Amino acid sequence: MRIGVLGTGVVGTTIAAKLRELSHDVLIGSRSASDDALPFANAAAHGELVFNCTSGVASLEALGAAGEENLSGKVLVDVANPLDFSQGMPPRLSVCNDDSLGEQIQRAFPTAKVVKALNTMNAAIMVDPARVPGAHDVFVCGNEDDAKTQVAELLQSFGWPAERIVDLGDITAARGQEMYLPLWLRLMGAVGQPNFNIRAVH
Amino acid sequence: MRIGVLGTGVVGTTIAAKLRELSHDVLIGSRSASDDALPFANAAAHGELVFNCTSGVASLEALGAAGEENLSGKVLVDVANPLDFSQGMPPRLSVCNDDSLGEQIQRAFPTAKVVKALNTMNAAIMVDPARVPGAHDVFVCGNEDDAKTQVAELLQSFGWPAERIVDLGDITAARGQEMYLPLWLRLMGAVGQPNFNIRAVH
Repeated sequence: MRIGVLGTGVVGTTIAAKLRELSHDVLIGSRSASDDALPFANAAAHGELVFNCTSGVASLEALGAAGEENLSGKVLVDVANPLDFSQGMPPRLSVCNDDSLGEQIQRAFPTAKVVKALNTMNAAIMVDPARVPGAHDVFVCGNEDDAKTQVAELLQSFGWPAERIVDLGDITAARGQEMYLPLWLRLMGAVGQPNFNIRAVH
Repeated sequence: MRIGVLGTGVVGTTIAAKLRELSHDVLIGSRSASDDALPFANAAAHGELVFNCTSGVASLEALGAAGEENLSGKVLVDVANPLDFSQGMPPRLSVCNDDSLGEQIQRAFPTAKVVKALNTMNAAIMVDPARVPGAHDVFVCGNEDDAKTQVAELLQSFGWPAERIVDLGDITAARGQEMYLPLWLRLMGAVGQPNFNIRAVH
């Protein structure tokens, strides 16, 4: 599959490497083109499906540079967290409570099929869930069932068991997925390292 | 032990019943006194330790009625969630991101030893963790280690294994515990019932 990965940080490079390992045709997009990355618009135009792995506080601008015409009708997997480190630690969320980054992106690009996914864990776990022993969960949400199905298939190819892919509903559930981050940061402190994830037990 | 439980909703009555089953000397406090409940101030004065189980959006007022002199020097277990249902579903948080209800209470009652605990699950699970099969976690945070130790002992008497009581740090971690609620609400929808909890897997 042709996939555009926007963002050259740890999340973007980790996801792009996994997708290439799975034989997808991947182009990486960046604000400033380089040997490894094209402009956002070229990477987005290439993808039948696009991953947003840019910094959450810069995602709307990055997606604007990618171009609505290059996102229209496509599944846009939003992995970003709107973490604002400008006022020091701990980061605050630049949007929360009545809104979320996932919703902002869906409103700004109404013809894209935004699926929020994978933002609740360390990048290494996203593409290799077996790094954490035992059962643990990945959350997805979005307005389009067919888009969530397509993302769930990709997640299964990453190693996620179908029964650990939890559909939280429409894109407004991105509030919950993003507002979990302050707890994640504290759990990282308590666990002592980022190689953990949560599981809903019932 | 003499314990004051503030709040006569499901959480307050559930916790008070469990504490009485464990032979504690419990008085329940309410905004309006009744056969079962005293005024907040009497219940707080009675307690060597006090539980805040009032509605989060009314907690500061309730604790004000309880009286700083009746909370001073005591462990105050804050179980409340600042959920504001006044604008319909889903509820928004009346405080989040840069602040939390736990911190507001600690600032308003600086001589109380506030420990945020138990707010991340259904009331029935708080006092009977075995209702959910397998290992799952309860979070605590607060500025005073001795207070957290005392709360952890109470939680163990409720049935929580010591290794599943996760200390998230100082009272600012209440942001994480409270901002988890939007995810909890969506998980309840996905699970189909409220009898679940999360576990940090690592």
